[in-house]
Amino acid sequence: MSVKIKVGVLGSTGAVGQRFCQLLAHHPWFEIAAVTASERSAGKRYADAVDWRLGTPIPEDVGNLRVIPTKSEHMLGDVKIVFSALPADVAKKVEAMYADDGFVVSSNAASYRMFDDIPLVIPEVNSEHLKLVNAQRDNRGWSGFIVTNPNCSTIMLVMTLKPLMPLGLTDVKVATMQAVSGAGYTGVPSMGILDNVVPYIGGEEEKMEIETLKLLGEFDGKKVVNASLTVSAICNRVPVIDGHTESVWVNVDATPERVKEAMASLPPLKGLPSAPEQPVIVREEDDRPQPRLDRDVYNGMSVTVGRVRKDVATGIKYTLMGHNTIRGAAGASILNAEMLVDLGLVK
Amino acid sequence: MSVKIKVGVLGSTGAVGQRFCQLLAHHPWFEIAAVTASERSAGKRYADAVDWRLGTPIPEDVGNLRVIPTKSEHMLGDVKIVFSALPADVAKKVEAMYADDGFVVSSNAASYRMFDDIPLVIPEVNSEHLKLVNAQRDNRGWSGFIVTNPNCSTIMLVMTLKPLMPLGLTDVKVATMQAVSGAGYTGVPSMGILDNVVPYIGGEEEKMEIETLKLLGEFDGKKVVNASLTVSAICNRVPVIDGHTESVWVNVDATPERVKEAMASLPPLKGLPSAPEQPVIVREEDDRPQPRLDRDVYNGMSVTVGRVRKDVATGIKYTLMGHNTIRGAAGASILNAEMLVDLGLVK
Amino acid sequence: MSVKIKVGVLGSTGAVGQRFCQLLAHHPWFEIAAVTASERSAGKRYADAVDWRLGTPIPEDVGNLRVIPTKSEHMLGDVKIVFSALPADVAKKVEAMYADDGFVVSSNAASYRMFDDIPLVIPEVNSEHLKLVNAQRDNRGWSGFIVTNPNCSTIMLVMTLKPLMPLGLTDVKVATMQAVSGAGYTGVPSMGILDNVVPYIGGEEEKMEIETLKLLGEFDGKKVVNASLTVSAICNRVPVIDGHTESVWVNVDATPERVKEAMASLPPLKGLPSAPEQPVIVREEDDRPQPRLDRDVYNGMSVTVGRVRKDVATGIKYTLMGHNTIRGAAGASILNAEMLVDLGLVK
Amino acid sequence: MSVKIKVGVLGSTGAVGQRFCQLLAHHPWFEIAAVTASERSAGKRYADAVDWRLGTPIPEDVGNLRVIPTKSEHMLGDVKIVFSALPADVAKKVEAMYADDGFVVSSNAASYRMFDDIPLVIPEVNSEHLKLVNAQRDNRGWSGFIVTNPNCSTIMLVMTLKPLMPLGLTDVKVATMQAVSGAGYTGVPSMGILDNVVPYIGGEEEKMEIETLKLLGEFDGKKVVNASLTVSAICNRVPVIDGHTESVWVNVDATPERVKEAMASLPPLKGLPSAPEQPVIVREEDDRPQPRLDRDVYNGMSVTVGRVRKDVATGIKYTLMGHNTIRGAAGASILNAEMLVDLGLVK
Repeated sequence: MSVKIKVGVLGSTGAVGQRFCQLLAHHPWFEIAAVTASERSAGKRYADAVDWRLGTPIPEDVGNLRVIPTKSEHMLGDVKIVFSALPADVAKKVEAMYADDGFVVSSNAASYRMFDDIPLVIPEVNSEHLKLVNAQRDNRGWSGFIVTNPNCSTIMLVMTLKPLMPLGLTDVKVATMQAVSGAGYTGVPSMGILDNVVPYIGGEEEKMEIETLKLLGEFDGKKVVNASLTVSAICNRVPVIDGHTESVWVNVDATPERVKEAMASLPPLKGLPSAPEQPVIVREEDDRPQPRLDRDVYNGMSVTVGRVRKDVATGIKYTLMGHNTIRGAAGASILNAEMLVDLGLVK
Repeated sequence: MSVKIKVGVLGSTGAVGQRFCQLLAHHPWFEIAAVTASERSAGKRYADAVDWRLGTPIPEDVGNLRVIPTKSEHMLGDVKIVFSALPADVAKKVEAMYADDGFVVSSNAASYRMFDDIPLVIPEVNSEHLKLVNAQRDNRGWSGFIVTNPNCSTIMLVMTLKPLMPLGLTDVKVATMQAVSGAGYTGVPSMGILDNVVPYIGGEEEKMEIETLKLLGEFDGKKVVNASLTVSAICNRVPVIDGHTESVWVNVDATPERVKEAMASLPPLKGLPSAPEQPVIVREEDDRPQPRLDRDVYNGMSVTVGRVRKDVATGIKYTLMGHNTIRGAAGASILNAEMLVDLGLVK
Repeated sequence: MSVKIKVGVLGSTGAVGQRFCQLLAHHPWFEIAAVTASERSAGKRYADAVDWRLGTPIPEDVGNLRVIPTKSEHMLGDVKIVFSALPADVAKKVEAMYADDGFVVSSNAASYRMFDDIPLVIPEVNSEHLKLVNAQRDNRGWSGFIVTNPNCSTIMLVMTLKPLMPLGLTDVKVATMQAVSGAGYTGVPSMGILDNVVPYIGGEEEKMEIETLKLLGEFDGKKVVNASLTVSAICNRVPVIDGHTESVWVNVDATPERVKEAMASLPPLKGLPSAPEQPVIVREEDDRPQPRLDRDVYNGMSVTVGRVRKDVATGIKYTLMGHNTIRGAAGASILNAEMLVDLGLVK
Repeated sequence: MSVKIKVGVLGSTGAVGQRFCQLLAHHPWFEIAAVTASERSAGKRYADAVDWRLGTPIPEDVGNLRVIPTKSEHMLGDVKIVFSALPADVAKKVEAMYADDGFVVSSNAASYRMFDDIPLVIPEVNSEHLKLVNAQRDNRGWSGFIVTNPNCSTIMLVMTLKPLMPLGLTDVKVATMQAVSGAGYTGVPSMGILDNVVPYIGGEEEKMEIETLKLLGEFDGKKVVNASLTVSAICNRVPVIDGHTESVWVNVDATPERVKEAMASLPPLKGLPSAPEQPVIVREEDDRPQPRLDRDVYNGMSVTVGRVRKDVATGIKYTLMGHNTIRGAAGASILNAEMLVDLGLVK
């Protein structure tokens, strides 16, 4: 790519927005040309507007950008793609305006995920759903379009379920142990989570149960037909900074060996800069995966699976773990955008 | 009780042994007359031998006792009951000797739990199993006997399952988030668990899956007939000091309201000093139970349940939490001993 | 005390307010008759208005009270003492009105601590400063008055410094490691403190450096003459829930043995319900005090000291620890009020 | 460097040994040719012998090496440098044998640090002390030699003190908040440090107080003359995985601006692969440095300083933070070896 594609980050000062800036800083295809935030921050240098909380310094180029307001009329004309790290309520209003104004919106927000004409995509799982983009433009009269990635805990789960579809997957139960970064920087008070577990994350279980069906569904040429599965989730917050761990039961007609082979064989995407060499890594040690040891594998873009074994009744149980703000959020949106470029959908 | 019953604590310097000493210090029925530990500690004052790690000071009377070796020939003659906080391998050898020598052994160790003639008991759940004591003495020619309590994570689970038996319980799936104290003081290195989850606890899943069937089984006058259930567990360690949290799915033919009513109605034991007024507390808040807020209710002897709701498929899902070293270990053994006294089995 | 004194808690729903309600619930002298909060909560049952975050249940009597607004005109007429857990900016305005309306205000807020006619008191240290109350009433024309307790980390430090005054104390350096509860429930985000230290707490160092001089000063019959000392503080936040630890260097002309003896001899207050039997506990173990093991001694009202030893240069170094929301906040205010009652200042 | 220098890692399976293997894996000058461990592990593949606990995978080349016993007679003949991550008692015996057999020993162990003829070196601070190597060989008749790096908390402190020597530094007081990784993988039990601070680390204060004087001393052509300073340390353990934070008071005759300028101007080493571009980074934000945000700057080889300000009495106070197992241990030894190569001392 001789000239980089100019991109913007919407909601660039929050926890996910910071991840976007970090991951895009040295991206071979994309160049951050605009960062947006609330009116209060507009006009400031990004480095002055943000309360940067990542373990690497603010990328210098990004730090020097002037923050602009999060409205499409302020977005620079030569920007092609905007990444949305907006909260759901803001995203609902704003993303449509960007799409209407011709921008490609790669969104991490939940607002549009479940609309029939909006692709909800994990590139290794259901990139064919991106064809919904045509219907979307027709329906809505937009010159741009919106593509979304799933909720963080859904992404990791579905990357391990996709390979099980040919093995007769019918039933999924999943208990999550989610990192505090999923709630944003001030989302979880330390007094609420030190030496503690919180057995509730608002809206999370519903997202896992519904998004999974769309992601594993088939695109029939016009629309996505949801997969026939039952999915039941129980979501918990634990004192971990990054990395969601999930205990999973599945009903499939296969041995643990067959399941492991299937998961490890989920094909990697060739040629996309953020795509991990191995999307699902299967480990044999009893005590893996662990967030602190496995979350950064392949720059945080792989999901690690362990303890795949026969269940006492029928079926299989296993544990999975992935980096929630990389593979589960900013990295997911960036990979979606790379896929769009690869498919020629960004012009 | 005008004169207190003299008791001993076997393995008194470890994490569970310390809990026994703490909980028995001001017990209305029992008086600690002997504390045992390895040969290395024998002869020392308990206060000098122990590396005390609880948030209340060492009880003065106990602190001044001289530690004796963990062999039945050293146990004082006027001791009636010995509480065992021994590791399983030591317990296997030693507890039988105590029973043979006429002592009532109330054990927290796993060694004898699954033998046909050894009662595995939660007093609120299956105190009728204590009748196995007669067969045990006949079989083994012991003048004393052994009574055991279940594994910590099993106890809490079974206290919530027992009320569901009349509702047609057939299938249980449970994912645990267990506190580090369950592994003993040096069991979990801080580097292994800070900012982390470990998805494995050796032997724990098997214990939950097997012990539950015996606990919910029926005593037919001679032996316990295991309950007909499938139980599948996935056990995880989280950075919590005390309090195991469990995400549970059950198949029962009942509404959430009926389930909550049944759990809250598990009858308390009358007249036993350590018995909680309400064995299972059902809360309505979305974000409860939590270890830090709920583990000390009724001195750590109650189990707290929350989020009882309909599952997407069939059945019910909920969350439970209990104090693993009190209700799940030392407190459980003490309550068993109180039940034995109440039934006239300690002479 | 045949009839209990009716008291109110101002700002009753915050972290310190909850501690007041917990500690006053079964108080032998005081009875909570009123709880206040912001307009938004007024009219609700306390149990419905509060997001209770302590490990013991909401006291039933308090839970059933109706919350009233935090203005003196709403306070019940038969209330004698109000405890203030208000933030400093609100306290500044409101506490004066209460005092003007005849209430005794025992405040944990910083707003009035450093005024010449407001007593800043730790009863074991400088109860004679309470005589400032007369000047205060004269100056301000109030029928009630305000008494304050110091900042949490100051209280613990000064309880260990007071006994060193006769030993020629001239210079104090202190580095603190403070618990997150000191910042209130939402004060410290978990992402900011898990696996981390924050080397800054706004205003804390100044409070320690200034309040100490007033607390150790002499009341000359009219006013307090500050002590002649230099105090230098460096304040840090660590991932601990309750309990501030402080590393201290002092210049005194005494051996470690003399220092330990002096600290352990700080006289307890006789007859006050919240006064600890031993205000400063000196331990000999190398690795004490520790927050988790020592913060609850004497119901959280004692300060524990350890590692008292000779410094390489001149002087002495040691470590201290105390419960920041009990001895360092709510418990401190309650003890002040008990002292006032004992001195006949509450009518 | 056309051909890499072959090196060995002594004690390669422990926490520091793993860091050596991680940091040396893609080193431009060095190639790991041998890894040693106890007899029990000898003969196994490194990947099978080690319980790898770092967040990056085991380097493949190293993972495939066969572990050899930690005795110099087993070391490969073409190895020039051995890095020692041995515990002090083993190091005492073993390192001398390696030096006697002609190896250059770059040691992180404490055993030889304080001997008159053994260089204790931080390359940015006192590389001229390496000239002690000649005396060492003469004295001991060794064909190789031993070079040591200081204790982790000393290194960071001294890197900030060195620039203050020309400003008249006379007195240092330092309170540390040290990460658990400093004690090795099993060194700090989670029950001891979750929600806790431990105010004691055996031997640590003495090391800081003594090593600092040697490091800041002058090499007079024959020996090192200790610096004239008083250093007093109080060492604490906090629930942080990596990164030691230190609260520091110094007596210098300079303004905070002058101190910051001096620290930021400590010259970087040119041409050494592990040397950070800026050895001491001075930040202006109130709340920095923080372990989680600053420990990985320049691959963990820089020390970050913040809050440099005037003290209430005389002098200056500030906070510093550095990565204890990189800059404070394995990285320090590697940098020492690079310096030796640069000086032509490795043949």
